[in-house]
Amino acid sequence: MSDIATRVYNHNFKIDPIVRSLIDTDFYKLLMCQSVHRNRPDTNVVFSLINRTKSIPLARLIDEGELREQLDHARSRTLTRGESTWLRGNTFYGKRQMFSPTFMEWFENLRLPPYELERKGDQYELTFEGKWPEVMLWEIPALAILMELRSRAVLATMGKFELQVLYARAMTRLWEKIERLRRIDGLKIADFGTRRRHSFLWQDWCVQAMIEGLGDAFIGTSNCRIAMRRDIEAIGTNAHELPMVYSALADTDADLRQAPYRVLADWHEEHEGNLRIILPDTYGTEGFLKNAPDWLAGWTGIRIDSGDPATGAETAIRWWKERGEDPTRKLIIFSDGLDVEKIEELHAKFAGRVKVSFGWGTLLTNDFRGLVPNDALAPFSLVCKAVSADGRPTVKLSDNPNKAMGPSDEVARYKRVFDVGAQERLEVIV
Amino acid sequence: MSDIATRVYNHNFKIDPIVRSLIDTDFYKLLMCQSVHRNRPDTNVVFSLINRTKSIPLARLIDEGELREQLDHARSRTLTRGESTWLRGNTFYGKRQMFSPTFMEWFENLRLPPYELERKGDQYELTFEGKWPEVMLWEIPALAILMELRSRAVLATMGKFELQVLYARAMTRLWEKIERLRRIDGLKIADFGTRRRHSFLWQDWCVQAMIEGLGDAFIGTSNCRIAMRRDIEAIGTNAHELPMVYSALADTDADLRQAPYRVLADWHEEHEGNLRIILPDTYGTEGFLKNAPDWLAGWTGIRIDSGDPATGAETAIRWWKERGEDPTRKLIIFSDGLDVEKIEELHAKFAGRVKVSFGWGTLLTNDFRGLVPNDALAPFSLVCKAVSADGRPTVKLSDNPNKAMGPSDEVARYKRVFDVGAQERLEVIV
Repeated sequence: MSDIATRVYNHNFKIDPIVRSLIDTDFYKLLMCQSVHRNRPDTNVVFSLINRTKSIPLARLIDEGELREQLDHARSRTLTRGESTWLRGNTFYGKRQMFSPTFMEWFENLRLPPYELERKGDQYELTFEGKWPEVMLWEIPALAILMELRSRAVLATMGKFELQVLYARAMTRLWEKIERLRRIDGLKIADFGTRRRHSFLWQDWCVQAMIEGLGDAFIGTSNCRIAMRRDIEAIGTNAHELPMVYSALADTDADLRQAPYRVLADWHEEHEGNLRIILPDTYGTEGFLKNAPDWLAGWTGIRIDSGDPATGAETAIRWWKERGEDPTRKLIIFSDGLDVEKIEELHAKFAGRVKVSFGWGTLLTNDFRGLVPNDALAPFSLVCKAVSADGRPTVKLSDNPNKAMGPSDEVARYKRVFDVGAQERLEVIV
Repeated sequence: MSDIATRVYNHNFKIDPIVRSLIDTDFYKLLMCQSVHRNRPDTNVVFSLINRTKSIPLARLIDEGELREQLDHARSRTLTRGESTWLRGNTFYGKRQMFSPTFMEWFENLRLPPYELERKGDQYELTFEGKWPEVMLWEIPALAILMELRSRAVLATMGKFELQVLYARAMTRLWEKIERLRRIDGLKIADFGTRRRHSFLWQDWCVQAMIEGLGDAFIGTSNCRIAMRRDIEAIGTNAHELPMVYSALADTDADLRQAPYRVLADWHEEHEGNLRIILPDTYGTEGFLKNAPDWLAGWTGIRIDSGDPATGAETAIRWWKERGEDPTRKLIIFSDGLDVEKIEELHAKFAGRVKVSFGWGTLLTNDFRGLVPNDALAPFSLVCKAVSADGRPTVKLSDNPNKAMGPSDEVARYKRVFDVGAQERLEVIV
């Protein structure tokens, strides 16, 4: 058992690496990467890190030299032999050889591409530019590095026993959550908390606590490295970046309207079963489902990642019924801003009506709210997104205007093209 | 990351010893031992372990073989060279050579004497018989062994993460207590929790937390081994066993009446300053002080170890005034059943009127109340006392009839001799 507090206290190494492996990343990144590598290998993209919580002055908290060291260390990682073996030999979602030999050969030779870092006031501008399959792999490590350096900056001011008690409190809190979740009959829940985790060691602890505390109700983690270390399932499907980039590349409004479906058509060819999960909210769930081709209704399920989750789930159920599908055989994955109360509520509301599962993120792996003065360890809203593709800006609308991204004229155009009406503005928790 | 060597080492002990050293005991035991070794070396005594909390079936919880192993291991301990150096070279209460060369030579050759162990129903009868200076050293290790074996019996039923969270909760609880104590201006507090500690490692953790959390307000620990390891003061003076044995040896009622003062006369010769602390409650504080010789009023302070502590302190203050002493220059040490609320209350009431200090015991080193089902780790009232001396029974009355000990006819005789009137019955917490 690692003594996390002691470890944190002992961080006087030249560098204590935050990202220790190329697969210390979300599983869906690798699935998407394979798809992009196959379908759009030459697209040029720019990914950019955006701190939505401006009140947290990252550039004042985090030393630029240390940030560069961590980013450079991540760039020094290549796939190890054991990791390659695991990816090649493992069963993912019941399927062997999820990753093709062509992809694996490419991945085995990959290093993360260069980054651009500049301080702008109290924030950092961190951007990644290059071929899509390479650049996209920066998202998760870049977020994890920034999140953990911020944690470390705060922890560096604390005494040894204060640290131990801090982790004692965080452990107690998580365990109390697990004890509540244990009471939910038929729960299925996964760890989706890599990107905004408090730290690598803490995420690893959380996963182990979920394994012991929840048994079969804990279905796995999105983090490949931890899935491998702890011998559990790697979980994930696809994300907004696919429709965002495909849409940016569309030449006309008509093309644009079809872009999100084209993404899923490519995915349909590559994956089956539990990997056929629709993420409908990139440009508004309502319009997306209304205009969707019938074959999409045959997919296994839907992931609800923005807007009011109960509303999103009701929309999906209604849509399946309209398309002649039986909702009780469909899967809804909730993954936006979850904590125990919300999980209990959604499970009570939808279990039985559909198959329900949860991707629990930041409030699993980074709930340090209220544990230090000024709430200096509270999680915050950091994202790393594709901002352009082949020189054209990307746009995301989602079901919550507070999560929208992109130049305002393009946002307006997308709203028109995708026929997005009035949207409810919801606070972005994490 | 597992430290394999440590793991292998841990799993290969023949036993995981509870008492690892002959000085894993209370400092006052060594002081008293030196006094007894000088003044009453040939007295034969019987010490006996008594579980006042009959609802805890020690003999069902604790395997007899394991208990014997632990007791035998304690018997295998002799003073190490480093321990001897520490006792000989250290300054205790500002004085060098607290322990005489004669005593040290004897102590360096000592092993704990044999024990008698028998199961009686759900309890163990554990007795120690022999020369007083040897037998008396069993009290603290015997208690610590029983307490920790009971903890281990409960912990053995728990999972790895349940265990970690249990300690996380206990740490959080202690730290919250420390944060409250930190607010008490001028606090002086010591660890008196060896005998009924949850475990050795936990006591050691508690002491370290007190060091970091309280700074100078934490004046030391009664545990010699931990004082040595953590380089802090060893704290303690004398206890009930001295008047109990001296009294048992008295031939007449008149002798008996003088016995407690004879103890302190011997002590007066041997010690000065902060070691001249009266423990007045063995046969009732009121009568003891009323009949005390004047030279006792010149002593440094008083320890209040039973009865209502505020009442005891008022009695002491009144007595000092009657004897023409200035209470503001006197020290009152509270040491009975303390927890934070009681410490806050007594400090608020007496700071300024006298010098106040606290010996915090069981609820410092064993507050696991409410942390596991059926409160199976709650501390309980286990004592190990001299029950006879040279064949005569000992008696303790104290200021709380629930703490009285001895054959009932002798208790009646002592009450008469010491003129003990009505006493308030108080629940014994720990």
